[in-house]
Amino acid sequence: MAPTENAISRRGLMLVLSSPSGAGKTTLSRRLLKEDRDIDLSISVTTRKPRPGEIDGHDYRFVDDATFDAMVSNEKLLEWAQVFGNRYGTPRAPVMTSLQSGRDVLFDIDWQGTQQLNEKARTDVVSIFVLPPSMDELERRLSVRAQDDESVIKQRMAKANDELSHWAEYDYVIVNDAIERAFSGVHAILSAERLKRQRQPGLSAFVRELTGQL
Amino acid sequence: MAPTENAISRRGLMLVLSSPSGAGKTTLSRRLLKEDRDIDLSISVTTRKPRPGEIDGHDYRFVDDATFDAMVSNEKLLEWAQVFGNRYGTPRAPVMTSLQSGRDVLFDIDWQGTQQLNEKARTDVVSIFVLPPSMDELERRLSVRAQDDESVIKQRMAKANDELSHWAEYDYVIVNDAIERAFSGVHAILSAERLKRQRQPGLSAFVRELTGQL
Repeated sequence: MAPTENAISRRGLMLVLSSPSGAGKTTLSRRLLKEDRDIDLSISVTTRKPRPGEIDGHDYRFVDDATFDAMVSNEKLLEWAQVFGNRYGTPRAPVMTSLQSGRDVLFDIDWQGTQQLNEKARTDVVSIFVLPPSMDELERRLSVRAQDDESVIKQRMAKANDELSHWAEYDYVIVNDAIERAFSGVHAILSAERLKRQRQPGLSAFVRELTGQL
Repeated sequence: MAPTENAISRRGLMLVLSSPSGAGKTTLSRRLLKEDRDIDLSISVTTRKPRPGEIDGHDYRFVDDATFDAMVSNEKLLEWAQVFGNRYGTPRAPVMTSLQSGRDVLFDIDWQGTQQLNEKARTDVVSIFVLPPSMDELERRLSVRAQDDESVIKQRMAKANDELSHWAEYDYVIVNDAIERAFSGVHAILSAERLKRQRQPGLSAFVRELTGQL
């Protein structure tokens, strides 16, 4: 049972997971979505071409440049950023739908996106930065991804270093030296943040009813 | 394994559990101390006489008025309050010893003590208010305490109402409608707060070492 399964109404939160590519963020995200039924994944739109195995609408929503431009100018994106010449963004509508129904939303975005979310909704954002235990380990994890060649790995290591430099902008930091421990940390953060007083707008009415019983 | 068992040094936190008497706070405290080895209980001093079964130095440190006066004037107490004509206070020295060695400290204190701790150490304090599921349940729990007579129960219900009115001064609020769920909430809050960036002062050095490996 989740710690929040009582009658108090709850305000959904925006859980951001960022890390250099290869630090284990994707594994942590997938497991959280599987084990917790009250959080939805925000599916990003991107102008990047799909990689083998990626499914439109599941991994990303793949769009062309004109579509992305239109989403930006019509303010349909909560945040967007350019990485390696491709653009990535978070569609606003599905996020709002989840939050308004008291559900949480998980964001797998980088420091650029996190800065923009914090600007727009600081009190609703809970951000976690996942650190690799070592750079050797990170390089090893990036190298075993068969689909990337040597130059892509080098580019990714440079991007990893850039991403790493922003760890201090996050609320929580987890060193992923063991996936079980890292996951229990992520899950504890989500459970705890749901119990924050400001996220339970039904509490005033509940306490009024309690004291009315005296 | 606790989610914080990596090499990053950690700053101890002050975990405050408050609730009206009978809402389950003592059960939650005892269980937390039993299941988590990195947190120490702050033993309060009091001028109240011991109840049957209470052990000096375990439940409270029982002192006379003159000793309490001296502790107040020598600033040996982090906080103190008067309840039902007796005084209760938190000795400063053991708390400082625990925090400095990277351990956390659990405080079983009321809203008066919590306000004083927040004034003195806001960034180190994490406060949880435990609500009873109903006042009937609270009264039932207070009535089964064999050592208290009818007038004491009435007095406690009045104090419960006073305590309840301060729920909105706490960081987290848990409705104790099922002890397992409430406990997993308390434990998640402790685990999560340990992962806050500001509580891991070793992170800067760790990331510097990581990026130095590139």
